[in-house]
Amino acid sequence: MAGEAKSRVSLITILDFIGTYVFALEGAMTAASHGLDLLGLMVLAFATAVGGGILRDLLIGAVPPNAVRDWRYGLIAFAGAGSVFCFYPFVREIPAGLIVMLDAAGLSLFAVAGVEKALEYGIHPFIAILMGGLTGVGGGTLRDVLLAQVPAVLRTDIYAAAALFGAMIVAAGLSLKLPRLPVTICGAVFCFLLRMVSVWRHWNLPRLLH
Amino acid sequence: MAGEAKSRVSLITILDFIGTYVFALEGAMTAASHGLDLLGLMVLAFATAVGGGILRDLLIGAVPPNAVRDWRYGLIAFAGAGSVFCFYPFVREIPAGLIVMLDAAGLSLFAVAGVEKALEYGIHPFIAILMGGLTGVGGGTLRDVLLAQVPAVLRTDIYAAAALFGAMIVAAGLSLKLPRLPVTICGAVFCFLLRMVSVWRHWNLPRLLH
Amino acid sequence: MAGEAKSRVSLITILDFIGTYVFALEGAMTAASHGLDLLGLMVLAFATAVGGGILRDLLIGAVPPNAVRDWRYGLIAFAGAGSVFCFYPFVREIPAGLIVMLDAAGLSLFAVAGVEKALEYGIHPFIAILMGGLTGVGGGTLRDVLLAQVPAVLRTDIYAAAALFGAMIVAAGLSLKLPRLPVTICGAVFCFLLRMVSVWRHWNLPRLLH
Repeated sequence: MAGEAKSRVSLITILDFIGTYVFALEGAMTAASHGLDLLGLMVLAFATAVGGGILRDLLIGAVPPNAVRDWRYGLIAFAGAGSVFCFYPFVREIPAGLIVMLDAAGLSLFAVAGVEKALEYGIHPFIAILMGGLTGVGGGTLRDVLLAQVPAVLRTDIYAAAALFGAMIVAAGLSLKLPRLPVTICGAVFCFLLRMVSVWRHWNLPRLLH
Repeated sequence: MAGEAKSRVSLITILDFIGTYVFALEGAMTAASHGLDLLGLMVLAFATAVGGGILRDLLIGAVPPNAVRDWRYGLIAFAGAGSVFCFYPFVREIPAGLIVMLDAAGLSLFAVAGVEKALEYGIHPFIAILMGGLTGVGGGTLRDVLLAQVPAVLRTDIYAAAALFGAMIVAAGLSLKLPRLPVTICGAVFCFLLRMVSVWRHWNLPRLLH
Repeated sequence: MAGEAKSRVSLITILDFIGTYVFALEGAMTAASHGLDLLGLMVLAFATAVGGGILRDLLIGAVPPNAVRDWRYGLIAFAGAGSVFCFYPFVREIPAGLIVMLDAAGLSLFAVAGVEKALEYGIHPFIAILMGGLTGVGGGTLRDVLLAQVPAVLRTDIYAAAALFGAMIVAAGLSLKLPRLPVTICGAVFCFLLRMVSVWRHWNLPRLLH
């Protein structure tokens, strides 16, 4: 187990760091657009980037959470905040489409990593899928709560749903004892594509009509 | 202990499931009235139904929380969301009085279950009473925070206070080594009646005048 | 360890109680100024006074958190709420300057206590510093979230930054194996002075210009 974990470190960890950085960028940009100060940028970058993973870890009993145990996540989150603070004129020129794509990539990665970790901790697959979704959207939700706004994820778009579907594929595949790597990749790619297509086609979840 | 727990399973668990379903209905109806989509209904149903118990479990060190360990609570919460989504025209016709009554029943049950669990985990009775109150009102509070509103429980009515009084009776009774079942029933009935009477008579907690 | 802890009890604990009481007063006064009822005062007093410590304890894996394990913190928080409720005409006449000073004292104490506890639990110094900051500002943040407001700490003033700098001094000093007591005092005094001077001179953190 430890050996397997170690052999997976290089790629998974690097992807995880990239996802953390992208989410931190988004958190800091949201903070900047709300006129918060440098500390506000740092807090929202941190909350957005590692909030989902921290909530998941608290709920599955993996304490201290990964982002508390491993200082590199905090450092990467602050690097994201610093990037926005120092290079805001450049960062704000990043095309919206690229941000949506990077964000979808981070979402996919967090969702599949979240469901896998929950399953490793012996959580029932149904709840593990929810934990995958929480890992993907928890950070953004925390950011919106701190900004006293209804979390965007509750209102619009196929976002959390994409994370849940991706996590579902992983949970199903691992329950069927399929090999881990292809299952993980399938889940992440499906989540990514569903998210991108839903943005492109303006898909939304059904809603009640009053 | 395990034997006693098992012998209590049938009734307590069924009551707990009913309370979860009622709270989930309320969460989903609030989500619907705020124009959230299907996922929003599911999230708010889940948060309202199991949020209080999850917060209590995190605070008393019972991790993973019950609602993460036992997938049936999540399923029931989503069943509540599904009921509202599929049968909204009917659900919204449920008389307000019935909802207030069911909600008071759920509140009572959660409050006494919460204080008992905290005491079982060796928490001091004073704090255990607070944990009982938190179990009762934590879910609704979380729901209101996610909707970026000041939690209703902080503003009006004898609601949390009823939960706290019910929990107090249980904590006092168990400290006096009175038999568990009658003490539990007394606490729950007192909480329920206090809540119903306060709605009926428009009782409120005192408030400062400026 | 236990011996050392016991020998430190008297002073540290008393200071901690005082900080808890001051923060509880502030929480209850905020609740009163928002027109909340007695229960609202109690909840916000509790959240403000012990929320930061509870969040820190959950994150570093010290469960149940101190304020759940030791009922005296809850009692002190409620005493703060009671003081505001019973003596509001007097409490509201407390000069703003005195409140700012007491608050700065509480902030300093919480920040250095927070970083020390995190280090004792084997948390990396970088994250421990963040935990010190969280201990200082987490309660006020939770209070603002419950009031559906953007936490003041994200928007203005050198407040969290003072807590972080104080915590940084403690973490640096203890990493260099300097004696604990002078290091702790240095960190707390620096945090206190930085906070007071920044209020006096209207210092703010830098902010992006659009």
